Amino acid sequence: MTLGTHTLTAGRRLLFGGDYNPEQWPEHVWAEDAELMRAAGVNLVTVGVFSWARLEPEPGKRDFAWLDRVLDLMAEAGIAVDLATPTASPPPWLGHRWPQTLPVDEAGHRLWYGSRNQFCPSSPVYRERALAIVNDLADRYAAHPALALWHVGNEYGQVCHCDDSAEAFRTWLRERYGDLEALNEAWGTTFWSQRYSDWAEIVTPRRAPYLINPSQQLDWRRFCSDALLAHFRAERDLLRARTPHIPITTNFMGLFKPVDYWAWADEEDIVSNDHYPDPSDPLAPARTALTHDLMRGLAKGRPWLLMEQAAGAVNWRPHNPPKPPGRLRLESLQALARGADGLCYFQWRASRFGAERFHSAMLPHAGADTRVHAEVRAHGRELRELACVAGRPVPARVAMVFDWASWWALEERGRPSDRLNASDQLFAYYLPFWERGVSVDLVPPSASLDGYALVVVPNLFLLGDEDAAAMTAYVRGGGVLVVGPFSGIVDERAHVRTGRFPAPLREVLGASGEEWRPVDGPVRCRWADGTEFAAHTWTELIAPEGAETVAELVEGGSAVLRHRAGQGVAWYVATMPEPAALGELAARALADASVQGVLPELPPGVEAVRRGEVLFLLNHGTETARVPLPHPATDLLTGSAAHDPVDCHVTLAPQAVAALVQGAE
Amino acid sequence: MTLGTHTLTAGRRLLFGGDYNPEQWPEHVWAEDAELMRAAGVNLVTVGVFSWARLEPEPGKRDFAWLDRVLDLMAEAGIAVDLATPTASPPPWLGHRWPQTLPVDEAGHRLWYGSRNQFCPSSPVYRERALAIVNDLADRYAAHPALALWHVGNEYGQVCHCDDSAEAFRTWLRERYGDLEALNEAWGTTFWSQRYSDWAEIVTPRRAPYLINPSQQLDWRRFCSDALLAHFRAERDLLRARTPHIPITTNFMGLFKPVDYWAWADEEDIVSNDHYPDPSDPLAPARTALTHDLMRGLAKGRPWLLMEQAAGAVNWRPHNPPKPPGRLRLESLQALARGADGLCYFQWRASRFGAERFHSAMLPHAGADTRVHAEVRAHGRELRELACVAGRPVPARVAMVFDWASWWALEERGRPSDRLNASDQLFAYYLPFWERGVSVDLVPPSASLDGYALVVVPNLFLLGDEDAAAMTAYVRGGGVLVVGPFSGIVDERAHVRTGRFPAPLREVLGASGEEWRPVDGPVRCRWADGTEFAAHTWTELIAPEGAETVAELVEGGSAVLRHRAGQGVAWYVATMPEPAALGELAARALADASVQGVLPELPPGVEAVRRGEVLFLLNHGTETARVPLPHPATDLLTGSAAHDPVDCHVTLAPQAVAALVQGAE
Amino acid sequence: MTLGTHTLTAGRRLLFGGDYNPEQWPEHVWAEDAELMRAAGVNLVTVGVFSWARLEPEPGKRDFAWLDRVLDLMAEAGIAVDLATPTASPPPWLGHRWPQTLPVDEAGHRLWYGSRNQFCPSSPVYRERALAIVNDLADRYAAHPALALWHVGNEYGQVCHCDDSAEAFRTWLRERYGDLEALNEAWGTTFWSQRYSDWAEIVTPRRAPYLINPSQQLDWRRFCSDALLAHFRAERDLLRARTPHIPITTNFMGLFKPVDYWAWADEEDIVSNDHYPDPSDPLAPARTALTHDLMRGLAKGRPWLLMEQAAGAVNWRPHNPPKPPGRLRLESLQALARGADGLCYFQWRASRFGAERFHSAMLPHAGADTRVHAEVRAHGRELRELACVAGRPVPARVAMVFDWASWWALEERGRPSDRLNASDQLFAYYLPFWERGVSVDLVPPSASLDGYALVVVPNLFLLGDEDAAAMTAYVRGGGVLVVGPFSGIVDERAHVRTGRFPAPLREVLGASGEEWRPVDGPVRCRWADGTEFAAHTWTELIAPEGAETVAELVEGGSAVLRHRAGQGVAWYVATMPEPAALGELAARALADASVQGVLPELPPGVEAVRRGEVLFLLNHGTETARVPLPHPATDLLTGSAAHDPVDCHVTLAPQAVAALVQGAE
Repeated sequence: MTLGTHTLTAGRRLLFGGDYNPEQWPEHVWAEDAELMRAAGVNLVTVGVFSWARLEPEPGKRDFAWLDRVLDLMAEAGIAVDLATPTASPPPWLGHRWPQTLPVDEAGHRLWYGSRNQFCPSSPVYRERALAIVNDLADRYAAHPALALWHVGNEYGQVCHCDDSAEAFRTWLRERYGDLEALNEAWGTTFWSQRYSDWAEIVTPRRAPYLINPSQQLDWRRFCSDALLAHFRAERDLLRARTPHIPITTNFMGLFKPVDYWAWADEEDIVSNDHYPDPSDPLAPARTALTHDLMRGLAKGRPWLLMEQAAGAVNWRPHNPPKPPGRLRLESLQALARGADGLCYFQWRASRFGAERFHSAMLPHAGADTRVHAEVRAHGRELRELACVAGRPVPARVAMVFDWASWWALEERGRPSDRLNASDQLFAYYLPFWERGVSVDLVPPSASLDGYALVVVPNLFLLGDEDAAAMTAYVRGGGVLVVGPFSGIVDERAHVRTGRFPAPLREVLGASGEEWRPVDGPVRCRWADGTEFAAHTWTELIAPEGAETVAELVEGGSAVLRHRAGQGVAWYVATMPEPAALGELAARALADASVQGVLPELPPGVEAVRRGEVLFLLNHGTETARVPLPHPATDLLTGSAAHDPVDCHVTLAPQAVAALVQGAE
Repeated sequence: MTLGTHTLTAGRRLLFGGDYNPEQWPEHVWAEDAELMRAAGVNLVTVGVFSWARLEPEPGKRDFAWLDRVLDLMAEAGIAVDLATPTASPPPWLGHRWPQTLPVDEAGHRLWYGSRNQFCPSSPVYRERALAIVNDLADRYAAHPALALWHVGNEYGQVCHCDDSAEAFRTWLRERYGDLEALNEAWGTTFWSQRYSDWAEIVTPRRAPYLINPSQQLDWRRFCSDALLAHFRAERDLLRARTPHIPITTNFMGLFKPVDYWAWADEEDIVSNDHYPDPSDPLAPARTALTHDLMRGLAKGRPWLLMEQAAGAVNWRPHNPPKPPGRLRLESLQALARGADGLCYFQWRASRFGAERFHSAMLPHAGADTRVHAEVRAHGRELRELACVAGRPVPARVAMVFDWASWWALEERGRPSDRLNASDQLFAYYLPFWERGVSVDLVPPSASLDGYALVVVPNLFLLGDEDAAAMTAYVRGGGVLVVGPFSGIVDERAHVRTGRFPAPLREVLGASGEEWRPVDGPVRCRWADGTEFAAHTWTELIAPEGAETVAELVEGGSAVLRHRAGQGVAWYVATMPEPAALGELAARALADASVQGVLPELPPGVEAVRRGEVLFLLNHGTETARVPLPHPATDLLTGSAAHDPVDCHVTLAPQAVAALVQGAE
Repeated sequence: MTLGTHTLTAGRRLLFGGDYNPEQWPEHVWAEDAELMRAAGVNLVTVGVFSWARLEPEPGKRDFAWLDRVLDLMAEAGIAVDLATPTASPPPWLGHRWPQTLPVDEAGHRLWYGSRNQFCPSSPVYRERALAIVNDLADRYAAHPALALWHVGNEYGQVCHCDDSAEAFRTWLRERYGDLEALNEAWGTTFWSQRYSDWAEIVTPRRAPYLINPSQQLDWRRFCSDALLAHFRAERDLLRARTPHIPITTNFMGLFKPVDYWAWADEEDIVSNDHYPDPSDPLAPARTALTHDLMRGLAKGRPWLLMEQAAGAVNWRPHNPPKPPGRLRLESLQALARGADGLCYFQWRASRFGAERFHSAMLPHAGADTRVHAEVRAHGRELRELACVAGRPVPARVAMVFDWASWWALEERGRPSDRLNASDQLFAYYLPFWERGVSVDLVPPSASLDGYALVVVPNLFLLGDEDAAAMTAYVRGGGVLVVGPFSGIVDERAHVRTGRFPAPLREVLGASGEEWRPVDGPVRCRWADGTEFAAHTWTELIAPEGAETVAELVEGGSAVLRHRAGQGVAWYVATMPEPAALGELAARALADASVQGVLPELPPGVEAVRRGEVLFLLNHGTETARVPLPHPATDLLTGSAAHDPVDCHVTLAPQAVAALVQGAE
């Protein structure tokens, strides 16, 4: 696709704004909104996400007049509009007149309106009604000067077990398997007498007396993601037909399990994401960095949009501390540093009513003369100084592999340990690279690994033959590969690969195992030099077959293995080391790959990442940090020298950010 | 109403008795019951609470003969009867023949018979059948000499989401809002596309995909309380028409969230309550005092009845320690001291079968020759010495405001912190007054505040304009007001009041805020004199606007503010101080209001409260307490001097009670 | 019955094998299976447990050809077949075409296929279809040479609340009570207005607003066990009619609450059990011993079969450590020592697919050249040395009474404390006997107590008059009886026995109580010599009436009482002592009964049990143990002397087992 964030940033510099829901306010407020937006540097607003009931107050009626006025107002104010299809939240009349559009959970409970998202993704009635309103919306605003971006639906993730869903699931399965015998084979229905004699017998994995067939569950999760995607595509196609020049997006939710974003990202023009770091989580900065890198990966390295972040507190955790002063800017610039070309908020003006009354906004209940709004305005202003970053890439020589299907397959019930989960493993392996200022690309298992000096596979429980072969070839060709435990265990059908594990990587790893050994307490391990470290949860009975045991279990057996294979090196980690030991492992693998961080030394809590020509330093810690810098530099945010010429350091107060370009001003 | 507890106590002194369920026993036991009741001083029993299936064994049939004999027996024994309508627990035939009378929970599960309370409050069939049996009961016993009190239903609290309930909810909403646009406005249905286009679309807040509209929830809670009240009134009206001279009550359950007792108390002649302190809770005595004060408030200062308490252990907590020796009397006298004219138990004779087999009773399974029954008898006897207390008021110069609608609104999901709840806040503010022997009246927000020297508002998240204005006027006229955090935030529709908070109290408090700042750990605060204290959960970004910051956050900002406004003083507490600091706060506010406890000094664990001429001292502690008493006094319970003339103390063993009148005997 | 394990062991020695599911594998694997089975000493396999969908791919069709080949192959290999009726897991077509066969939970949720066990035990359609396939299976294989044992269903335990179940429940109740008045009396329906006026009104105890009638619950649990048993008997009768010479079993699950195994054991020829000790539980060896002793009790002292155990890890706990090396053998020999004549596994070959992919097997995914398979083979081999044990009894002079009906009744909601549960009490009393090497028979309350020197009743909350009288007679005749707290409280209808407790044992215990006093924290107690010990959860207000208080509460009152009654002694324990104090109690009771362990001294963690002529010593500890042995002995497992002639000890490494016969080799 040639459409991308550049079509938005062109003439606008970096994008700054948020969700704008004027239908919640009397019209006299709208003018004040436009004025305050301009003062805050807002240049993009998302409009109409929850407007279906307003646009179609009764089935088939239309009321676009108010939205005309909103878009006209934005056009006048020079603010671009990200116009949403309103199909995330159908009006009550839909569920009332057509109850079959309401979703049903796995126990059979129908979920009602009065909240949002109450639709069955496979409902023909929902589909018809949703496309009708999208069609008319597209017709009406295709040529509106404010229209800059289409926002399809909102945070897709609905799951439904109704009979319409079961029917759609059967159709999907027929397409996947062709004949019923192939499905019986793939699902292993000889186990527990589950053989299907007719397609009509197949239902969604509804509540059952005991563990449900894991292959059925895996296909169900694939179907759920695809069913939503099918609906997304139907809406997208209507929009694209009207406005081939306007990019289309939908807002992702980071490491969101129900939807396979690798499949989705290919179907939209711009990747965008909603991200809400937990202010109470000391590891939030690293988790956020991982999420941003995932977005960059989904965008194939091109810029993406931070569609939603909070200006202060959210309202949906049990306890919701606000962001402390300075955090709003720090977090927003972190996204910029990691590839975002737009920094948007949910939402512009805090709602007075509804379930999100207590979600913070760019403009608080208390008005414009507030700490939060002052920070918003200052941040909008300073973004102008960073316009040169728009469109620039974040270079990375390390790739980390992550896969939704493997995630789904791993976290089924009935496995060696439910303490092993895919996203925790991913983060555990990501953290030491973040701490070292080493940029990482998140990639799917099918990605080309060429060009990466180091590839890390924290966990790929499900691993296909081709992907395993590509990893093997990558190492043989000189790459460095790190593989975490319980990888390569099942195939695409979630069948265990027989023989010693990990069967498809056994050769490249130079080792094989026969038994998983989850453990209760901590496990003592030892590097070759005798230094000990702790691991937990998991060990394996595994034997080197050419690999060197670089760390062993003190009680006996291999913990970490390293194998020279062809021109490259393959590491296997047969346990779950504590963070410091994973750091040591990362350091050794980086040395194997001759990769270094963007700076030689980095104090704890300081994030360093290079985007284009700019080196971003972000102090997430609570202490002032002194960062050694090997060369003079100018801070774009202050316009002055950032580098102390005497002791060659940059000094960063807590929450402070520097955006450095090399050389004195 | 002129009917009150005096119609019962007249000629009977204080009321003493319990639930009596003779239908569970062969008739030969009844005579023994009457004999033992007389020996124990029982003068009031509640009969027939769960007798519907016995009175109407098949639809339309009647069997009153057994109940005739019970009432005759009681009349002969000189024991008054509190006759219950049996409608709390319909017979199985009702649910079997009319399944639509069975309640449905918010997920759609029908709740069956085999337990109790299985009715939909809005079911026309239930209503018709219930009123028919009540009608006949009233006809039959209107003139019975034993009849002294009507007991309508039992512990009302049923909630139902069936279609009949949805229909009744719509009717209630039509009455409240008149037209649908007003409802859409009140519920803020522009949020999340919830606009209703037809009344028929509205349902109860059933299980939904995510957070439900908080205004809908608030109206739903109002409706649920009102739907039950409508049924109560229908039964009451039948009774009142037959027996205008017999008072009518229903038993409350203290701080019971589902039902707005302020609205209910006005509809009955006598307030009565069921209360079961947790023997494992060291703060139970203060919690109980609060509940009793609430009952006195509901009764507008008139006496009330303790309809149910336990003689020993209950059976419905997971683990049920009994009351230690002496506790039965201590807890019963506490209710007397706080305004009860009747001290009754669930139940007279311990059941052999049914779900409450293991609930203690006045007469245990083991019979009359037991510790528990001996205490019951002794307590019944000693109540005769306290007859002079009947009908007497408990004077209080401090009012504490509590409101069900605000409670409901506050504890919806999706708020700054779910660690802030209305009843905990109420108790936290109540405790220091209880510890100081300061009597407190519980009042609704609409109460007249005249006559109170100090008014405490622990939390009124929802606060109407008129009530806020009345509080402001109260301060300006010389009152002292203490307001806890997150008050005045939403209006009656649960809409956030825009502008700086707490908007409607901003002027009287002389301060305003812009941001709620829930915190994870403890927060250090400091009084003006430098003394530190800890607070938790909550802080605010708030600025004095005339108020003085009397305690600040050590990290900066106001924690407690005090504002001289007109002739009075208003305090605002912008955090949640630890108990000792709330004690200091209470002491300062009491000083502002020139209010003192009933005694100058009170050892920990000793409760002091004055009712009429009698000063009650109750030692809830585990140590013998010496209470300084400024004047000689006689203990009504012993009939002798309670005051040591040498060192001017009253000595109280653990669990002991003194009922003192001034002067030597 | 004359059929027993001897019909299997005759000519085969001890039985060794496991579940064999060849339908999960291509036929070329079967020959390898047979070869590896022979190499491992396998002589019994369970076939067909989950083969319904394979045998009847469509309603009414039959496909036995594959099973013919499997049984022929086993016959050729000399391996006996335990042929299962496949009715535990119906094919999807059953639930699809006849949804009324799918079970419904107490909230009304239908449970679907896709797992296993999805049938309503009372469904006429399920019954008809199940018996049809069993009939044809029996016809086809009645004369097959491989057939050695019938395995009916699998791990029975299904519960269903559908209308068919309600109808069956009513039928069962009519048979039990005859007329409705008797049911109303038994269920105490005068409580809470629950009187039934028509049989048709009665339903299963479905979800209700509050606590459900405990007598209804008790009858429901009785019915659920009986409904399954009725189905078991229907299948059994079909099999028995064809093959009166082939024994019939079904696999139990130890202390499995839903099914009353005392009633079931009488209906089968051989008792068999599935048992999976938790490798993370340090008390697992003693818990396992208790379970094995229960099986021996169910088998009335005759040998039983360990039908399923794991070769390594299971997959159904949240976290599943494997068995460490040596544990496979240790645990299997423990079953042998406690009366098993067969030691089988789930399953032979690890599945590649389905919900139990990660359950270990005798033949792991990694193949035959693995640690686990090597241990399997070695274990199969060594069993030949122990052939002499087959058929031999485990003598015991101590009986411990346990009852399902009492268990069900005790653990209803609404009781003095839910911290008191029947299986924990049983284990607490069992543990000190196990530690002392004293063999214990588990018996039902109706068992003859003649021949036991000591009878222990850890808890019999429900105790019938006859059983109480038998216990009284037992003591008077010279027996020693130990009774734990809260015994004898209710009758068979779950009605509390009025009067002082425990009413039916009051005379024999020489003591009676009036009040249960659950406690929150630990309770200090004191033996007569002043030694203190701790107890917890429970105390009672109980008075000696002839008994001696051998331990008292430090705060006052009796904790343990001992009463000489007639020729015997009765103990009553009115609290829950810590394990060491229960050990002291056991020692005193053993002294009263003149019973000793099989060895005079036993190090911690070492289990000692005698079966026939063989003394088994099993070291479950992590340290090498030295066990004093009073006489020379030969170890059957090594064939050499086990007894050090100098210091008279046997030395046992961790996980080691000795099978000793007296005398040098």
